[in-house]
Amino acid sequence: MLSENRITLFETTGFPNPARIRAAIAEKSALNDVDFVEIDVMNLEHRTDQFYAMNPMGTVPVLRTAEGEFISESTAITEYIDAFFAGPSLTGTTPLERGLIHMMQRRAESMVLDAVATYFHHATQGLGPLIEKYQCSEWGNHQKQTALSGLSYFNEHLNEHSFVAADTFSMADITLFYGLAFAEFSGLNIPAELTSLIAWREEMAKRPCFSNQ
Amino acid sequence: MLSENRITLFETTGFPNPARIRAAIAEKSALNDVDFVEIDVMNLEHRTDQFYAMNPMGTVPVLRTAEGEFISESTAITEYIDAFFAGPSLTGTTPLERGLIHMMQRRAESMVLDAVATYFHHATQGLGPLIEKYQCSEWGNHQKQTALSGLSYFNEHLNEHSFVAADTFSMADITLFYGLAFAEFSGLNIPAELTSLIAWREEMAKRPCFSNQ
Repeated sequence: MLSENRITLFETTGFPNPARIRAAIAEKSALNDVDFVEIDVMNLEHRTDQFYAMNPMGTVPVLRTAEGEFISESTAITEYIDAFFAGPSLTGTTPLERGLIHMMQRRAESMVLDAVATYFHHATQGLGPLIEKYQCSEWGNHQKQTALSGLSYFNEHLNEHSFVAADTFSMADITLFYGLAFAEFSGLNIPAELTSLIAWREEMAKRPCFSNQ
Repeated sequence: MLSENRITLFETTGFPNPARIRAAIAEKSALNDVDFVEIDVMNLEHRTDQFYAMNPMGTVPVLRTAEGEFISESTAITEYIDAFFAGPSLTGTTPLERGLIHMMQRRAESMVLDAVATYFHHATQGLGPLIEKYQCSEWGNHQKQTALSGLSYFNEHLNEHSFVAADTFSMADITLFYGLAFAEFSGLNIPAELTSLIAWREEMAKRPCFSNQ
């Protein structure tokens, strides 16, 4: 049973996008203010009428808000959490911060996390034949190259910056952090010469939001 | 010469993503507060060192902010404009509005505008061989099917809502509006049975932000 006014996160343990939301909630020191419900993707729980009613796209994570609405898409959920809970801003407060953080968030998605996801789901066995009903291996391998270019881009950026966006920790750091984890999980190793990226990652890994979930 | 403190939009006339930013600026009644610079994509002006210095991704639009920074990615630019200028909010003010608007913005992108763009650039002649250096026609045609599913999804949604997100005009309406225009430009006609989508579009077309640019 869902509590009426509690925020609930429908997530799948070990998946990168739900992990992003966990980290955002942890940064807001709000893990005790949210209920967590596991969705068994491997047994197609995200392909049920009950799940589609929450998210017609059939993807995790989904957030049930305090108002009882359902929000999906990781950036959108993060916007809700950031505005709802007190604590340090993850999405920026000035116009410039908001613009820069959303820009780098999108680059971390399209050039790393989403590119890796497309490689994983289309050019490897992905989650297996039960779930991967359609694969376009040519596109998947092309996106692998996009991801490698993305890693180089962020390495160069982090050569001169401590954080991914706007000189402050933000949702864009969370996205890139799990993008790297997903890359390695998919067999796409971070090239050893990308030393700034690797150093940034080691620094990030010390944050409680990533290490104490 | 660029004025120092004026906001400048680098755009390409007739392209859907720059048009989204024009519409956002128009909704904020700020067209006279922004300078506009045309980028000649057909002659590869977006493939010059000067342009890459503004946006390493090589895409239009790019915004030069009042602070002198460069922001790309349409949602990020819209966040900046919405926070910088007075006027009705395009990205939401409450946590719930922010979450719902960003969710529908992303769906309007991934299911319509970006899906159509992938179809256009990969499964049609796109912008011609000078620009379309790599095409994956299988993926392009798959994304055409995604776009058609997206149109049906929005038709169903607009059967019960006046706007794309959160019962108020927002950036998500702008994105879907230009998604439909791009679909037709690409030869992907809006199926006549999607009557709610078509009625919404006719209503939107009356707004000055779309008709008086």
